[in-house]
Amino acid sequence: MKIGILGGGQLSQLLALAGIPLGLEFYFYTHAANCSAQGLGTLCLGDYQNFAALSAFAEKVDLITYENENIPVEVLTFLAGKKPVFPDKMALTHSQDRLLEKKLFQTLGIPSNQFMPVDHLEDLHKAIQTLGYPLVLKKRSEGYDGKGQVIISEKTDLTPLHTSLKSTLAEEFIPFEREVSLIAARNSSGDCVYYDLSENQHKNGILRHTRNRPNDPLFIEAKKILKKLLEHLQYVGVLTIEFFVKDQQLIANEIAPRVHNSGHWTIEGAATSQFENHLRSILNWPLGLTQSLGNANLYNILSEMPAISSLLAIPGLHIYDYRKSPRPNRKLGHVTLVMQENEELNRLITHALTTR
Amino acid sequence: MKIGILGGGQLSQLLALAGIPLGLEFYFYTHAANCSAQGLGTLCLGDYQNFAALSAFAEKVDLITYENENIPVEVLTFLAGKKPVFPDKMALTHSQDRLLEKKLFQTLGIPSNQFMPVDHLEDLHKAIQTLGYPLVLKKRSEGYDGKGQVIISEKTDLTPLHTSLKSTLAEEFIPFEREVSLIAARNSSGDCVYYDLSENQHKNGILRHTRNRPNDPLFIEAKKILKKLLEHLQYVGVLTIEFFVKDQQLIANEIAPRVHNSGHWTIEGAATSQFENHLRSILNWPLGLTQSLGNANLYNILSEMPAISSLLAIPGLHIYDYRKSPRPNRKLGHVTLVMQENEELNRLITHALTTR
Repeated sequence: MKIGILGGGQLSQLLALAGIPLGLEFYFYTHAANCSAQGLGTLCLGDYQNFAALSAFAEKVDLITYENENIPVEVLTFLAGKKPVFPDKMALTHSQDRLLEKKLFQTLGIPSNQFMPVDHLEDLHKAIQTLGYPLVLKKRSEGYDGKGQVIISEKTDLTPLHTSLKSTLAEEFIPFEREVSLIAARNSSGDCVYYDLSENQHKNGILRHTRNRPNDPLFIEAKKILKKLLEHLQYVGVLTIEFFVKDQQLIANEIAPRVHNSGHWTIEGAATSQFENHLRSILNWPLGLTQSLGNANLYNILSEMPAISSLLAIPGLHIYDYRKSPRPNRKLGHVTLVMQENEELNRLITHALTTR
Repeated sequence: MKIGILGGGQLSQLLALAGIPLGLEFYFYTHAANCSAQGLGTLCLGDYQNFAALSAFAEKVDLITYENENIPVEVLTFLAGKKPVFPDKMALTHSQDRLLEKKLFQTLGIPSNQFMPVDHLEDLHKAIQTLGYPLVLKKRSEGYDGKGQVIISEKTDLTPLHTSLKSTLAEEFIPFEREVSLIAARNSSGDCVYYDLSENQHKNGILRHTRNRPNDPLFIEAKKILKKLLEHLQYVGVLTIEFFVKDQQLIANEIAPRVHNSGHWTIEGAATSQFENHLRSILNWPLGLTQSLGNANLYNILSEMPAISSLLAIPGLHIYDYRKSPRPNRKLGHVTLVMQENEELNRLITHALTTR
């Protein structure tokens, strides 16, 4: 079976590493020959304007999926005319536009923070009146790792902003206690499986550390919410939802129609990884067990790869090198440790991650 | 870092799947373009007579290892003149010639069965006088999966054998209670790690089922024996030793200077797989933890691939498809289950393995 993936980054790399043992073959549609997925399948070079290349890519594969949501909807429509594409256009449309996403939460009665669409400076003034300070101004689309977000406080000078307000969204700022995400997989027969909640620590908008939270009291509520979304969207594949937690209540922040950074711990820390379950979902195969195998800690490697021998000296650590060139704040890899909580080991890992 | 592997079979495939996340690149020297390792690195086509191709292969890589012991020693000598090769010639020489292997066991005081070298019919008659019936006649080299072995009993007509006796070995037949193997990894700093014993079931000379045996009473003795071999050979890489167990005593049968089929359970069933630890060893990196994560059961898939959806319906099962064309008794893949012993699940697996 030949799987086409739009994108050649680390999520494609990890999908291929999970799928090759299952006998699957991979084709990556990417503009960069030197990408993380290189060497794990056939690269099909092209961008999202090149419909001839997209067509040739679709010809080669049995099934198409994608590793990020910044894909023009018309590309998905075009490809869906040629081969099955999962997750479908409906999921992509809602996840790539924050306004539609927030409206979907409203429609389904999913608790989320207040928001107002903004295009001009006067919309922003209205939003400040309604939502109060501070508020978060976000681009409706193409934001990731905290990019395209700014916090507006009483002290912010709004004048220089007016040229960049088109297609933004003003959102109530949530002074949250913690951030959690829930990852589920659903196949086209309608079978669903859910992982344990992930608790996430971001710094400057970029995920740094995730640990799984078996038996988290908020799991049942989070699962109810995600189930609503999966069924409403008739979703096929892995779907992730991120929440803020305030006063021990879940506040939905955003969804991602794909395998998710906060679920990388599932490779060693769960009975079946999110990557394998995404593939099983889109192939409509039986889904794998999602139970946690222990206390999992996942750390992202940013900016520069640390010395591998320092990392490997940490007992039980698993390392993933995305084979990307270093750049400040770029995600270059991750490490995972599955065990009982151990502060000393966490200290060792933090040290090794900063050893060059 | 660029790793060259002699061979492109499933062991190369599994080594690459373990090494790519560590940022390693792979080059496979193989005579078959359509091999299990295909798509996981660069194929270098050639056979062991083609020294120009071997030389070009060595040029491309930083380090060389191999996935089976049927390599002419002069090839290893040639390559070692160009790049570091692990395990070295000494380990290969002893493991590819059963006579040298048995003599090594003798030298190191490792209990093994009695043997006599045979080249002619009169040697065989002498062996029968000394060792008695039944005995096992084995080729000194190039036997695998029970090939090149014959049991000689009182009823065997010896006359037709006389043309095939050159370079064989007559061995005392051991009516064993069970077969176990021990797998260890040693890096060039001399650090060693040992996995739990594997208990193996063969049928017609081919491994069918392995389970790990945490806390096996024979582990300590097996470890002592393997440690002697590792140190005598100043071995670098993963080394496997197979034993017969009779009257609860270990009788060394053979060694393999490589990752081993009976250790495939370590991918999901141990903290670090034998494949990752082989790579860590030859790179002289710190070795990974070898502790078992549960009761692991490994089943080989022979002859024909079963229906993947039957396999995936078994909770917790992990599947490896070696992407080989079907042939009677050929190893095409394996499945692993890590959990508590469960007869019902074993029955389900056995059923799914025979579902086409």
